Amino acid sequence: MEHHFSPIDYHISLGPHEPVLRVADGDTIITTTVDARGFDSNREQTAPRGNPQTGPFYVEGAEPGSTLVVELDEIKPNRRYGFCGTAVAPNVVDPTYISELPEAGLAEWDVDVDAWTARLVAPESKLGELTIPLEPMIGCFGVAAFRGQAISTATSAEHGGNMDYRGFVEGTKVYFPVFEPGALFFLGDGHAAQGDGEIVGSGIEISMDVRVTLRVIKAKKIGWPRAENDDWIMTVGNARPLDQATQHATTEMLRWLQQDYGLDALGANLLMAQCVRYELGNIYDPAYTMVCKINKQWLK
Amino acid sequence: MEHHFSPIDYHISLGPHEPVLRVADGDTIITTTVDARGFDSNREQTAPRGNPQTGPFYVEGAEPGSTLVVELDEIKPNRRYGFCGTAVAPNVVDPTYISELPEAGLAEWDVDVDAWTARLVAPESKLGELTIPLEPMIGCFGVAAFRGQAISTATSAEHGGNMDYRGFVEGTKVYFPVFEPGALFFLGDGHAAQGDGEIVGSGIEISMDVRVTLRVIKAKKIGWPRAENDDWIMTVGNARPLDQATQHATTEMLRWLQQDYGLDALGANLLMAQCVRYELGNIYDPAYTMVCKINKQWLK
Amino acid sequence: MEHHFSPIDYHISLGPHEPVLRVADGDTIITTTVDARGFDSNREQTAPRGNPQTGPFYVEGAEPGSTLVVELDEIKPNRRYGFCGTAVAPNVVDPTYISELPEAGLAEWDVDVDAWTARLVAPESKLGELTIPLEPMIGCFGVAAFRGQAISTATSAEHGGNMDYRGFVEGTKVYFPVFEPGALFFLGDGHAAQGDGEIVGSGIEISMDVRVTLRVIKAKKIGWPRAENDDWIMTVGNARPLDQATQHATTEMLRWLQQDYGLDALGANLLMAQCVRYELGNIYDPAYTMVCKINKQWLK
Amino acid sequence: MEHHFSPIDYHISLGPHEPVLRVADGDTIITTTVDARGFDSNREQTAPRGNPQTGPFYVEGAEPGSTLVVELDEIKPNRRYGFCGTAVAPNVVDPTYISELPEAGLAEWDVDVDAWTARLVAPESKLGELTIPLEPMIGCFGVAAFRGQAISTATSAEHGGNMDYRGFVEGTKVYFPVFEPGALFFLGDGHAAQGDGEIVGSGIEISMDVRVTLRVIKAKKIGWPRAENDDWIMTVGNARPLDQATQHATTEMLRWLQQDYGLDALGANLLMAQCVRYELGNIYDPAYTMVCKINKQWLK
Repeated sequence: MEHHFSPIDYHISLGPHEPVLRVADGDTIITTTVDARGFDSNREQTAPRGNPQTGPFYVEGAEPGSTLVVELDEIKPNRRYGFCGTAVAPNVVDPTYISELPEAGLAEWDVDVDAWTARLVAPESKLGELTIPLEPMIGCFGVAAFRGQAISTATSAEHGGNMDYRGFVEGTKVYFPVFEPGALFFLGDGHAAQGDGEIVGSGIEISMDVRVTLRVIKAKKIGWPRAENDDWIMTVGNARPLDQATQHATTEMLRWLQQDYGLDALGANLLMAQCVRYELGNIYDPAYTMVCKINKQWLK
Repeated sequence: MEHHFSPIDYHISLGPHEPVLRVADGDTIITTTVDARGFDSNREQTAPRGNPQTGPFYVEGAEPGSTLVVELDEIKPNRRYGFCGTAVAPNVVDPTYISELPEAGLAEWDVDVDAWTARLVAPESKLGELTIPLEPMIGCFGVAAFRGQAISTATSAEHGGNMDYRGFVEGTKVYFPVFEPGALFFLGDGHAAQGDGEIVGSGIEISMDVRVTLRVIKAKKIGWPRAENDDWIMTVGNARPLDQATQHATTEMLRWLQQDYGLDALGANLLMAQCVRYELGNIYDPAYTMVCKINKQWLK
Repeated sequence: MEHHFSPIDYHISLGPHEPVLRVADGDTIITTTVDARGFDSNREQTAPRGNPQTGPFYVEGAEPGSTLVVELDEIKPNRRYGFCGTAVAPNVVDPTYISELPEAGLAEWDVDVDAWTARLVAPESKLGELTIPLEPMIGCFGVAAFRGQAISTATSAEHGGNMDYRGFVEGTKVYFPVFEPGALFFLGDGHAAQGDGEIVGSGIEISMDVRVTLRVIKAKKIGWPRAENDDWIMTVGNARPLDQATQHATTEMLRWLQQDYGLDALGANLLMAQCVRYELGNIYDPAYTMVCKINKQWLK
Repeated sequence: MEHHFSPIDYHISLGPHEPVLRVADGDTIITTTVDARGFDSNREQTAPRGNPQTGPFYVEGAEPGSTLVVELDEIKPNRRYGFCGTAVAPNVVDPTYISELPEAGLAEWDVDVDAWTARLVAPESKLGELTIPLEPMIGCFGVAAFRGQAISTATSAEHGGNMDYRGFVEGTKVYFPVFEPGALFFLGDGHAAQGDGEIVGSGIEISMDVRVTLRVIKAKKIGWPRAENDDWIMTVGNARPLDQATQHATTEMLRWLQQDYGLDALGANLLMAQCVRYELGNIYDPAYTMVCKINKQWLK
């Protein structure tokens, strides 16, 4: 079944908040997200700052110990104005270099969905005009956190949250561990495109039209978010320092390969040895995000 | 001029050791490297364990404050036997998961340069046969370290060393800061292929035939290794935790964009914002390696 | 005014929960805390596991932007049975040493408030009998977290939480930034004594009789918990890695010295240079705790 | 036997350098050290900058696999002028606070050995006059590094080096693992006093008269520096981040308790649980230093 949902209120934490809609296992939701500062498709502020989330959606049948599957069917900017930070974050450069960063401000992008490009409009710099292809993605999404917590949309953990991974694009299937009845799915913080690491603290921030399908896998417990697309399976670790995020993602991949792909411990380790790939989510937020990947060609 | 050099002695630190050969700026060296455990193309041990290095080569005209350019003209396995570790390193998984790793041992690979593949031969596991394409690379190379130090080939720093980055393949041009007269260039630790992070502590370790061309850029001071290929410019940070390696690489890229690509601070930051990419070198050694990349299409 | 409060329900997160009692600025609360696993003075489980908290107490006049002052008037074990872990946590030793740790279990202590000692009762080991003096402290306390979050009692942040610092003993005055109306003060997780770092994941865990006085400083904004006793002023940073916790604590101390002790930036830095001391809170939880101290003799 | 040694040349790395003196097991050396910038008791520069070291001293009988015991018999400033940095290092504060640090410069101290005090002389600040007691210590000392390396005196590792721990005062006995024949002992970088962490990058830097006695324990292999005084046994971990330095120090203490103090693994863990203490060496250098301590009263 398809639900068209127009959000009214938004949340800036992922926790056991009152559901805005109850959907069945397998239902599709067509809705919108506002940008990271709470502005909608008309550039009107309709939500508080800080990655306000559409939702939560209660999914029938999801229980603690289940896994929620989120299919990202469509992620499409619904206005032309996008913005990003102008300066690399102080925590991403050498402490002695921080004084050489430009002033932190906002850059403006013209996002053209027809041309499938984003064009840097302001401020002026020696970079001149820069036009890059769109890669629309969801920066912050996930389920209500474990142990009854309500965790800020500024950060991330086992439940997902603000991971800012370039790979969370249309066509990706994402798996979250469920901690609350109904899972309570949230999403927001769309980016028209983003560099690795989200090192200026933002992608090209924009409001979105989104379409997601939610499914439940009963009695399947996972430790960290997992994902897949046509070519890759991926696991996500969220923590600081990056070393620890990497440990979480790597451990989750070793578990996945053994649980679902018929490998023993030795086989999983041997496969990872020469075939593993890693990609950065953000290295800006309180928790950093590391993604561990294996190409599906090795899993046949 | 081309030099054919057959190594006799090897070094397990990058420091102010006696040069084995003096070459002119622009000369090419054709030589060999033994594998990480000191075994040559005949599988005879001719060097001590621990990434023994061929060299050092003294390059006329290189002085502290210069930059050494290393063109990786050819990197080709010169035997069929390769090996790698069987277990992900304890520091790469969650501390509570370490007990579930398989026993650390050696896996054997058949490296076929004609077919351009490596095939996992032993040990047996549920992974079964695994055949992957070759991507021959140099794991450990660089120049004599700063301040008269002799730094172990187990680790890396500003002078290069054991970076284990998958991108250091044939056709890559690598830049090192020079700290000693003649630069004193070393190389070794070839891998027929390698996963990101070198997470079992090894790629497919093998001896190599190599051909490198060495050039000097006088009075050009760089902070960390830089590299480029047809498509990308890259900077390398070596440190622990990975956060700090990332800071070094990011800072070096911001500097490079401003020094050599005509950008101001604002332009360099805006470009990095949405176009930066990161890749992992090793996350196994005492110092981890992070690579920061920008595609050359944005630099025209 | 003095309030005698007998807790019924407990919380395992510090967030905007319904207050159990409203008190005036300056009031004293006499109450009890259960142990980390939810057992009370009769060794009956009356609360869920995981540092269950007594409270929250709503303090009249506390507003976001205020500071809450907590005077720890009395902290006294109210039963004889205490327990702690038997094995140092995996994250506190070298990854390669984890396999040599003993099995994680519970050790039993006889806590004698009259003799002011704790005696190790079980398990048997070559350590034999060990009797140490009591140093009763509060492991987890603080106020509702910022931005409407509910943060698990397993961890800590700007609002306090599970800091496990040996210095939070009777006679200490602790300052917390206020994020919610009424501040919403919580406390629990008492330790009869504890080593630095809480490296087995527990002190000598025990239920307590406590007496605290709560005051409000209006329009005083602090960044991190602060504390003082007769001899020292202290600031607390909570984060991972420990380097970041140290940065938070050091920064907060530099601010405090300039805000309240009449120093300029140069003077504060010069004082810290040779007189600063650091002490560890826990290095076991998701966020580690570092304490930065200055002796009051230098502040006259 | 006592040797009076007047240094002529100094080293800025700890490696297999030519010995300046050969001494027997148990001999005492009376010598001097210059300050961190190479200035001697007459404030004349006689050595290069960067913690120049007196030595190395070859100790007869020391072999790889031995332990060198260094008794710090006397450490006494031999001039009145001391200096330290004026600003906390950028890596010790929050990245966003770095711009609020004062300019990095030098402060001047009057070191009075008769009064046993150091008095801050310049620059002027709102701190006014500050007079603190002397606690003379050695910042950088140790033996030639492992694997033939020559490691900069800016950093530290298993062989010791620039640890900057306030506890390395007169009366302390320090143990180093031996990696080269004769151990090759170096020392320098004296501080008249120092705050924890050496957070301005220096203690009160000064030249020293020193007296040390060197002994060899044959066939005793330790992993990291150890130390003891009348009251404590201590182990030292050097690494970044601080978490890893802590892991090294904790692991070494668990080993020591089991090797030399008759404890089994369970007993060592139970003792550490409630009795361990930690103290910071420097958190300024490339490798940070954490010290793990156990009071001797618990070891009887």
